[in-house]
Amino acid sequence: MMDRLLVIHFDPEMPCQSCDYSYFNNNSGEIHEDRRKKIAIVGGGNWGCAIACIVGRTVKAQDHMFQPIVSMWCRDSRKSGDTSPSIADVINCTHENPKYLPGRRIPDNVIATSSLLNACESADILILVVPHQGISKICSELKGKLRKDAYAVSLTKGISSIFENNVIKMQLISDGIEESLGIECSVLMGANLAGEVADGKFCEATIGCKSLVNGEELKNLFATPNFRIRVTADFEAVELCGALKNIVACAAGFADGLGWAYNVKSAIIRLGLLETKKFVEYFYPSSIGHTYFESCGVADLITTCYGGRNRRVAEAFIKSDKQLHEVEHALLKGQSAQGPPTARDVFEMLKNHKLAENFPIFTSVHKVFSGEHGAKELYDSLRNHPEYE
Amino acid sequence: MMDRLLVIHFDPEMPCQSCDYSYFNNNSGEIHEDRRKKIAIVGGGNWGCAIACIVGRTVKAQDHMFQPIVSMWCRDSRKSGDTSPSIADVINCTHENPKYLPGRRIPDNVIATSSLLNACESADILILVVPHQGISKICSELKGKLRKDAYAVSLTKGISSIFENNVIKMQLISDGIEESLGIECSVLMGANLAGEVADGKFCEATIGCKSLVNGEELKNLFATPNFRIRVTADFEAVELCGALKNIVACAAGFADGLGWAYNVKSAIIRLGLLETKKFVEYFYPSSIGHTYFESCGVADLITTCYGGRNRRVAEAFIKSDKQLHEVEHALLKGQSAQGPPTARDVFEMLKNHKLAENFPIFTSVHKVFSGEHGAKELYDSLRNHPEYE
Repeated sequence: MMDRLLVIHFDPEMPCQSCDYSYFNNNSGEIHEDRRKKIAIVGGGNWGCAIACIVGRTVKAQDHMFQPIVSMWCRDSRKSGDTSPSIADVINCTHENPKYLPGRRIPDNVIATSSLLNACESADILILVVPHQGISKICSELKGKLRKDAYAVSLTKGISSIFENNVIKMQLISDGIEESLGIECSVLMGANLAGEVADGKFCEATIGCKSLVNGEELKNLFATPNFRIRVTADFEAVELCGALKNIVACAAGFADGLGWAYNVKSAIIRLGLLETKKFVEYFYPSSIGHTYFESCGVADLITTCYGGRNRRVAEAFIKSDKQLHEVEHALLKGQSAQGPPTARDVFEMLKNHKLAENFPIFTSVHKVFSGEHGAKELYDSLRNHPEYE
Repeated sequence: MMDRLLVIHFDPEMPCQSCDYSYFNNNSGEIHEDRRKKIAIVGGGNWGCAIACIVGRTVKAQDHMFQPIVSMWCRDSRKSGDTSPSIADVINCTHENPKYLPGRRIPDNVIATSSLLNACESADILILVVPHQGISKICSELKGKLRKDAYAVSLTKGISSIFENNVIKMQLISDGIEESLGIECSVLMGANLAGEVADGKFCEATIGCKSLVNGEELKNLFATPNFRIRVTADFEAVELCGALKNIVACAAGFADGLGWAYNVKSAIIRLGLLETKKFVEYFYPSSIGHTYFESCGVADLITTCYGGRNRRVAEAFIKSDKQLHEVEHALLKGQSAQGPPTARDVFEMLKNHKLAENFPIFTSVHKVFSGEHGAKELYDSLRNHPEYE
């Protein structure tokens, strides 16, 4: 692990050479411990780069709290023998991710690296923003190699299942991270399409925190006058809203692809929100109701059902005779939509608890992707929703 | 008032000549009282005709409960000397309202009339579906002329203000109807764009009832396999959701007109829903929270903010230098948008209670229409919303 003591040889009249900020030299010429929090972003995709645009600015604006250099780990996806530069090198040279967030400048103080360990080992706060599928590999690589007092915030959407005493059980991604890395892990979710966030347009987010102290610190880290944050301790609901919205967005995409109307789509969003609420209340009965009025609830659901990639993929899927992976390949430049695997995981969980019939939208979305349901069954799942009984 | 006793001269082998239904003749040739409820629709605009499509079918399908002939009053808007047929005559001949709901067939058992009294005096259930501006004139014409045991259901959106002891006070439209006509008045609101309802597409509605018996009867009257109804006693919230959504839809229309993004629009819908909730809780503290998850809450708000006329009018208004009435004239064929007058009424109410600052979206929408606010002030009303404090 890197040493936290910075040895600074400086001219008292000059700013600190290590970080461009002089205040912590204290004008004495002595060695000081830098108590400011160091931030690492784990993931350099579309959302990772958007959040880098935010955090790159907020740490500079709050250099009394945060170290102004932010590390960002970007997966090196080059195949053996590929001599093109890594995505980390491209970002460090051009300050842009031309593949996933073209045209948006990533601040100069965000330094990309292909080495996960270099990015994270001295970090105080890890922002995990990788697809669900990549989380467990990252956790095993980082296990035992982080600062003991570090903590994480997960922006990853999805749910995990684990086997415990031969029974399949649901696990929140944030709980899995905590278990694997031995550090606290909060979540950040909300109505924030990446491009708009990167452009600095007004939007909102919700932090679901495990401890309020860290929740408030994360609020300071992310909040800008245009990126408005609210913090709640109801982290299970926040995280599950973020995961389950992608299933609902697939139903909305099917509705669009089938030419259904505004009323139907609004009913899908409403019934989807109620299924989300029921799901959270079943698996986490201590959750409070107000979270669905937060950005991670109704707002994110609307954004995702109108402007998100899951909607787009589902619309294209139901209109074509292509396989899902072909549709994803055509639309998402190598990234994947989180809705279909989340629908599958949720369906398995519900089936296991004999609850599938109580969640007709979640269930039908999975069955449309798996070929068991067509338009009629999806429509009937709405018309005959238990909400109307 | 018309006599309720029907004198039926009939051949026991033949169906009843009055209504095409023979079961209540009881095969005896005697005079019978028709205990089935008679329905009158007051209003033949876009939404009135759509609801006539629904109710025309449901009364026929439930002829043990409802008389199969439905009266529909349509305002005769011809000017003196105009020799063209009235809209009621056109509907009775063509079974279509070519101006407000072209291409949708109104069932043959819906009989239109230009006489308000003829339509309503013998009705058991009055479905009031006229613009807010027209309600008080209709109520004064009907006062004292209805069956004593009749009741009403209002589909009208808006809020009224009354003076009481020199103080301006809010009054629900349904309460005003009750006061004026001396009959109970429930409400029906929900995510139902008229054209889609008339086409028999799947959609939902919420009935906010004053008595559960009438609420259940109204559910029978309106519900079809594709028009799904839920009933709640939280009528104040149901009615105010229906009224206030039009203000939020104007904010969404401004956002569209100004080229703002998905995240902003979702934030507007969410914050608008919270302002609605806060407004209801302030003026009707006994209201319950779940109503916002009903169709009249979040679903109607989404439909209206994406597909409704208020959104369309507001978008066109902010993009042009035209007056509001010019924009309405160009877009709405003589109908008007309910959002601007509701925003004005709500603003007056809030100002009177020194609450305007707590409702920045409601307030800013009014001020944009009145020319006091531009895009910047509207944007700031979102970014600095008290919800983020």
